[in-house]
Amino acid sequence: MSEITVGSYIFERLKQLGVKSVFGVPGDYELALLDLVPKAGLTWRGNPNELNAGYAADGYARINGIGAVVTTFGPGELSNMCGIAGAYCEFVPVVHIVGYPTEAAQHGRNIMHHSLGEVGDGKFDVYHEMARHITCASVVLHDAKTAASEIDKVLNAMLLYSQPVYIGIPTEVALQSTPSINLSFPLTTALPPNIPDLETHVVSLIRAKLDAASSPIIIVDGGAIRHNVIPETEALIKKTGFVYFATSMGKGGITENLKTFGGVYGGSGSLPEIKKAVEGADCVLWVGNYPSDFNTGEFTEQVKEEAVVDFQRFYVKFAGVRYDVKMKYVLEALLSNLSSEPLSTKSHTLSWTPYAAPSSRPSHLTQDYLWATLGPYFRSNDLVIAETGTSAFGIPSSSIQHGDNIKMFNQTIFGSIGFATAAAVGAFVAGKENGSVERGILVTGEGSLQLTVQAFSDLLRHEVRATIFLLNNGGYTVERLIHGMKAPYNDVPNWDYGALLQAFGPSFKTKHFLVKTPDELDAVLADEEFNEAKYTQIVELILEPDDAPQSVVLTTAAIEEFNRNK
Amino acid sequence: MSEITVGSYIFERLKQLGVKSVFGVPGDYELALLDLVPKAGLTWRGNPNELNAGYAADGYARINGIGAVVTTFGPGELSNMCGIAGAYCEFVPVVHIVGYPTEAAQHGRNIMHHSLGEVGDGKFDVYHEMARHITCASVVLHDAKTAASEIDKVLNAMLLYSQPVYIGIPTEVALQSTPSINLSFPLTTALPPNIPDLETHVVSLIRAKLDAASSPIIIVDGGAIRHNVIPETEALIKKTGFVYFATSMGKGGITENLKTFGGVYGGSGSLPEIKKAVEGADCVLWVGNYPSDFNTGEFTEQVKEEAVVDFQRFYVKFAGVRYDVKMKYVLEALLSNLSSEPLSTKSHTLSWTPYAAPSSRPSHLTQDYLWATLGPYFRSNDLVIAETGTSAFGIPSSSIQHGDNIKMFNQTIFGSIGFATAAAVGAFVAGKENGSVERGILVTGEGSLQLTVQAFSDLLRHEVRATIFLLNNGGYTVERLIHGMKAPYNDVPNWDYGALLQAFGPSFKTKHFLVKTPDELDAVLADEEFNEAKYTQIVELILEPDDAPQSVVLTTAAIEEFNRNK
Repeated sequence: MSEITVGSYIFERLKQLGVKSVFGVPGDYELALLDLVPKAGLTWRGNPNELNAGYAADGYARINGIGAVVTTFGPGELSNMCGIAGAYCEFVPVVHIVGYPTEAAQHGRNIMHHSLGEVGDGKFDVYHEMARHITCASVVLHDAKTAASEIDKVLNAMLLYSQPVYIGIPTEVALQSTPSINLSFPLTTALPPNIPDLETHVVSLIRAKLDAASSPIIIVDGGAIRHNVIPETEALIKKTGFVYFATSMGKGGITENLKTFGGVYGGSGSLPEIKKAVEGADCVLWVGNYPSDFNTGEFTEQVKEEAVVDFQRFYVKFAGVRYDVKMKYVLEALLSNLSSEPLSTKSHTLSWTPYAAPSSRPSHLTQDYLWATLGPYFRSNDLVIAETGTSAFGIPSSSIQHGDNIKMFNQTIFGSIGFATAAAVGAFVAGKENGSVERGILVTGEGSLQLTVQAFSDLLRHEVRATIFLLNNGGYTVERLIHGMKAPYNDVPNWDYGALLQAFGPSFKTKHFLVKTPDELDAVLADEEFNEAKYTQIVELILEPDDAPQSVVLTTAAIEEFNRNK
Repeated sequence: MSEITVGSYIFERLKQLGVKSVFGVPGDYELALLDLVPKAGLTWRGNPNELNAGYAADGYARINGIGAVVTTFGPGELSNMCGIAGAYCEFVPVVHIVGYPTEAAQHGRNIMHHSLGEVGDGKFDVYHEMARHITCASVVLHDAKTAASEIDKVLNAMLLYSQPVYIGIPTEVALQSTPSINLSFPLTTALPPNIPDLETHVVSLIRAKLDAASSPIIIVDGGAIRHNVIPETEALIKKTGFVYFATSMGKGGITENLKTFGGVYGGSGSLPEIKKAVEGADCVLWVGNYPSDFNTGEFTEQVKEEAVVDFQRFYVKFAGVRYDVKMKYVLEALLSNLSSEPLSTKSHTLSWTPYAAPSSRPSHLTQDYLWATLGPYFRSNDLVIAETGTSAFGIPSSSIQHGDNIKMFNQTIFGSIGFATAAAVGAFVAGKENGSVERGILVTGEGSLQLTVQAFSDLLRHEVRATIFLLNNGGYTVERLIHGMKAPYNDVPNWDYGALLQAFGPSFKTKHFLVKTPDELDAVLADEEFNEAKYTQIVELILEPDDAPQSVVLTTAAIEEFNRNK
């Protein structure tokens, strides 16, 4: 029977799944394993630390489909737990490969470095136990003979649930042989089909609801992106002609170029016309609804429950009944139903513009001016990553109606600051590799940047030519608005961001722009060389500490209210 | 009954325990809590990210006795798990305070940001479950009425075990009232006494062993520092006149100025005379033995088991019997025994010098030259923190016989690279606060620095006047020696470290020295202004990628052997 090393088996499987780059930090329990990365034709992209590596793998997966990160046992994997937990709750499939001490060291209960030492009582499974809470499947490969099937089992779970998995490999097991026969049978990436009769029944019920509706709409939410139903959703929008909306988490998933694009909905954080249209609709096809606090204007959404058809990865729910059918196939079947029996034509037009213009031209740069102005700067094949906080709250008010295939994401649910900067590394690498991205754009605040700033080094050395908009407003503005407007704990130290960027990659060309006024912002955005983004560049936007987009002001007030009273 | 808010209760307790500074990163679930930090007279020292904050709290505790770090629920606490796990296995008492969502949000199973969202199934206890694995006690305070006693219970466990604890506080509970009466009774910081007869018995047995010994020695190991028995151990060394040794983990705990100091012992990584003396001894008082791989030259120690008296926090073991007596009180009783009945005088002299001099003066800077030369630079009241890897392996060969109260530490057991730089922030702050440290010195490699480099910002803004020796050898040298000498995964990108330091604190004076030769190193170390360390300065030492101290070469060869064969 033909065989392959356990380590190579994993990397061959990853390659079959479309992975081209692997992120991580070397450690002595994983060094032999890392030798196998290039042997499988994959590129090793080491990162300054494991949290950055985990975020990079997450960002990579959001653009490439699957991400992979290798760390050492103990400190390495623990430092990445925040990264894996974020991927877990946001349905990002990432393989976390952990290099373990040898089987003999484990069985011998040796006090190895990176273990919990004498207080660990000779146990080596503690970190794995911790990881179980934030992965959909996990294994430590104690036996090379069964490793191939164990690896497949875990990867299958990742593909089914679209969530991270954990694979621990003891040092010597990585180099031991396992059967290679399974590699001739690629893993199934598609979800299992629905029960045919149930699917037909569900589609007919939805169809009846559409026929009866007088003000139907579609909401494209984060789950539509994460569960890969954007093509079906866009086809549905075009086929029905319904007015459609994005949410914060869905922003950038769907084109905004169709004339029925209604704007971004998030409860009380929305423009009044949008709120009225969504909450007044008598039929809401809500694709990938993810009703978290930040995605709902702190639970201020008031969509009529009886109007909603709730499309989820594994079910569709409406009128109080949950049907266990995968939305992807239901959407496909619905499209086919609509093709064979078109809807009677109704007029679906907007009586509003989806984005508000800034009320006036301020003397100093303001958040409202910034977000309104940034929209038209975005163009086809841009990938825009917005950090949790002011950026993620602000970018939904930027129009992206001036181009096609403009992708955006942020970490709406987990909301870990620092994520965006490091995730950008992986996302921009993936976009460069698969050719889907022309310009990689990061929008972050300086408080968030500080958590993962060493990602600058990776952006430079991987030559992804990033454009970084850095909101410098002297601290954690979102936190100020929630609580502690003048509190010193919401201050952050001032860094020289232009010098930092250069110092993280002395041999690379970089550029720093300082922007304090609308005129200065306009000038940068009109600069042809800047627009070409031929090298990594940073635009430092000086903003007032207490200024924020209107949606933030509304939502943070709701948050403090919620924290106090609920 | 008099009352106090739950948040203030915690901070008052921390103040009673000698905590002056609290580290952490703000987050909206903890903002109300942070208002209470200055109210208790404590200083809030926010950090760029949570891992840095956790390491800083660990470093602070190693100098101050107790450390504290505040993070938010979810991303914040997960990012600090590596920091807490390190403190757990190295017996560093740190309180990790976590700001939780409100009780109502938890009971309502709301999809709050930072939670595991819809996949978390409405549970908010997942992170706490994970933390249980790496803390000696933990609690989430769901009820203000019982909070004071719950807090005391957890803090008592921390004091007893000298390990980290976890206290979760829902947003609104922080501001609710709890009885304050307990605050009138300070927590007991001393360990409970031994059973008197057993202690007397153990001391008499040890005393008999000492009287019978012809070549007795004392080894001062990491546990002697971590369990606070350095004063007793030093008294024992002086009283007995025995030759004494340090280990890697014990290095810097004990003075090296006494004439019976024999050097640093670590199995095959030791100088031959030291190895012979330790392994030939017929009585070894081993204080705080911690037999981990890195602390034993990869398990190459060959001390005679029948010779050893193993002194531990909660027990003393010899001749195959473990007595449940705390070493601190046994050492005190042994000292008192030796005072009333002095040992018969024997000659305890060294036939070797504890440190090897470099064999020749190389044309370019070498590791051997570096460590031999660095020793005499250290002076009284220095605190030296060495990073895991080359630095921690190298510094044991630096003599610290030229001063008093020279403290050192490294994270020998957990061995997380990046620890030293961030821990230095907390340690140097503590040393400045309590006046025990004149110069804070960090010795690290550039690969390790990159994990937590934003600590530079904290070193500058807290004005601790750090001196940083940065070994720049183009990557992870310790890893190269273990496996992959030329492998690209062991490279790290080159940064402009002088420019970085300045960019992290543009308003502070800094200085950068580039050192490539012995002459240049000598010149820097002879520079008077440099020695005064009036501001933060960095000495970048250019070394060959494959050069390492002899102890590293020996130990890493043993590590690869161990990884391969065991």
